[in-house]
Amino acid sequence: MNEADFIAALRRMPLHPGARGLIDDSAVLTAAPLVVTTDTLVEGVHFLPHDPPADIAWKLVATNLSDLAAKGALVEGVLLNYPLDDSAWDRAFLDGLAAVLNHFDARLIGGDTVTLRGPRSLTLTAFGRDAAAPARDGAKAGDALWVTGTIGDAGLGLVIAQAGHGPIALRDAYRRPYPRLTEGRALGPVVHAMMDVSDGLLIDAGRMARASGLAVTVALDTVPLSEEARAFGGTDRAARLAAATAGDDYELLFALPAGITPPVAATRVGSFAPGHGLTLTDSGKPIPLPPRWGYEHRPER
Amino acid sequence: MNEADFIAALRRMPLHPGARGLIDDSAVLTAAPLVVTTDTLVEGVHFLPHDPPADIAWKLVATNLSDLAAKGALVEGVLLNYPLDDSAWDRAFLDGLAAVLNHFDARLIGGDTVTLRGPRSLTLTAFGRDAAAPARDGAKAGDALWVTGTIGDAGLGLVIAQAGHGPIALRDAYRRPYPRLTEGRALGPVVHAMMDVSDGLLIDAGRMARASGLAVTVALDTVPLSEEARAFGGTDRAARLAAATAGDDYELLFALPAGITPPVAATRVGSFAPGHGLTLTDSGKPIPLPPRWGYEHRPER
Repeated sequence: MNEADFIAALRRMPLHPGARGLIDDSAVLTAAPLVVTTDTLVEGVHFLPHDPPADIAWKLVATNLSDLAAKGALVEGVLLNYPLDDSAWDRAFLDGLAAVLNHFDARLIGGDTVTLRGPRSLTLTAFGRDAAAPARDGAKAGDALWVTGTIGDAGLGLVIAQAGHGPIALRDAYRRPYPRLTEGRALGPVVHAMMDVSDGLLIDAGRMARASGLAVTVALDTVPLSEEARAFGGTDRAARLAAATAGDDYELLFALPAGITPPVAATRVGSFAPGHGLTLTDSGKPIPLPPRWGYEHRPER
Repeated sequence: MNEADFIAALRRMPLHPGARGLIDDSAVLTAAPLVVTTDTLVEGVHFLPHDPPADIAWKLVATNLSDLAAKGALVEGVLLNYPLDDSAWDRAFLDGLAAVLNHFDARLIGGDTVTLRGPRSLTLTAFGRDAAAPARDGAKAGDALWVTGTIGDAGLGLVIAQAGHGPIALRDAYRRPYPRLTEGRALGPVVHAMMDVSDGLLIDAGRMARASGLAVTVALDTVPLSEEARAFGGTDRAARLAAATAGDDYELLFALPAGITPPVAATRVGSFAPGHGLTLTDSGKPIPLPPRWGYEHRPER
C-alpha cells in the first residue's frame, strides 16, 4: 500500500481524540500523569517471517499493553511506526491491528510510516493513565515473589510455530499474548514491585532483585505450567528450566509482603532476602543455575 | 555493544525525571497537555549508509524536534528505539545523541533496544509541553503562506553527501538539520496553521491547503534560496523547482492573515484562496506543476 492508503485505513481504526484525525504530524494528549512505554518487534527476532501479519499486529500491541499492565494503568492509546510492505501484508496487519485495538479498547494516537527493505521492524508506543505505577525496584527483604498465569507456554509455542505443528493453544500463546491489564489494575496499588515477564522468569526475577538491591530465590518446582505445556513439554527439571528461561510470557511478576494473598489468581514462585544474586531451588534444595536465564539482546558482544 | 552496555551509556545522557533512571520498562510523564510526535529514519531512505553515526543521531532527534517546533512547544523529552549494532557505530551514535540532546536541552525518557540484521531503522518519539499547537488545517482564504529560513539546501546537501564533495554548509544542512524551536514558540500563538517542511515545500504546502479545504498558490520565484545554494545549484527555474520539491528542509511553513508581518524572519511564498489544488507561478505567471511535488513513501504502489 502507499502511505496515503495506509493512513486512510488507519483513520478507520478507533482514533484517540488527540490524534486530530491523523492529519497532523503531532498529537495532543491531555491526561496526566501518563505512563509511557515503547517496544520494537523485529522479524526473525521477536516474530517469525511466516507468522500471520494479523498476529504480529496483535503481538506488537499486546506486548506494549503488557508494560502498561505492569504499571496498573488504564490504556490511553498507542503510536505506531510502520514499514509499508506489500499490500496483502499491510491489509492483513491492519485487520489484526483493528482487532487488538478494539479488544483492549486502545485508541490510535498517531505514528509514522516508512519504506524499509530488509527484515521488518515495527515500533509501538503505548500510553496509560491513572496508574499506581509500581516500579521494579521496590521489593523488600522478606517479600514473596508471585507470578500470574502460567509460564513457558509461549516458549513451547515458538517451537510449535517453527515446526508448523503442535497444540494451537500453545502456538497462540506465542503469537497472541494476552496482557494482564485487569490483574495489573488490581495489583498496582498493593504490590511493592511489579514488572511483566517478557524475557524469561529467571532473568526478570533477577532484574527485579538487582534493581531492589536484594537476593531472590526462585523455587523451580513451583513455576506454574499449563495443562497444555505439561502434556506437550513434560514437567521434569529440564522442561521447567526451559519454561523459566523462555520469555514471551507477558505475565505479571510482583513482590508482596509474606503472608499477604494477592487480589488476583497468582502463584508464589519465590522470595526476596538481603544480599544479591539469584538462587534456584527444586524441592527445597539449591540447584545449579542454567547458563542462560532468558532472552537478552546480543549478550555475546 | 550489548544491551546492558548501551543502556549504561544512555544513563549518562541527560535523563528526564520520569525516566526512573532507565531501570523500568515504562516512564511516567506528569506535564500536561503533551504534544507527541514520532519519526522513523531508515538507512538508505532517510540517511545514507556511510553517513556518520553521530550525524544520524542528530538528524533523528532534530527531525522530531522540528515537529514539536511546528506546534510551538517546549521540548519535554524523547524516547529512543535503537537497533544495536557494532560497538564503534553504537559509540559514535551515542556521542551524537549526547550532543543533540544537550544542544536542544532534550532529556531522555526511555526507549527500547533490539537486534536488527539489515538496513538500520531508528525510531524516536518526542514530547513537547506548553504548546499553542496550531494544526495544519486552520488556514483561511486570503491568508499568506510563509516559510522560515531557506529551502533546498538539504536537497543539494544530499547530492553532495552522495558525491563525496561540495560545499560543507549544504552537506550539513542535510546531515544536521536545525529545528526551528525558537521560531515555533513565537509563531505558535499567532499563526492560523503551521507544519514543518519535511517532504518538500510544494507537497507540504499542498497538504496544508488540502487539510484546510483551500487552494494554494506558490510563487516559485519567491522561494528563498541560500547564498550557498545559489552558488552551487543556480537560480533558474529548474533549480528552484528542485529546491521546492527536495524535502528535508525542516523549516516552518505557516499561514498568516494577509498584511500581518510574522514575528520571526520568514519569506512570503504564496497565498490561500477558496477552491482546491496547488498552483505554481513564476514571475506572476502560472507554470506547469512538476510531476513530483516532494518525497512520498512508495507513491508508485
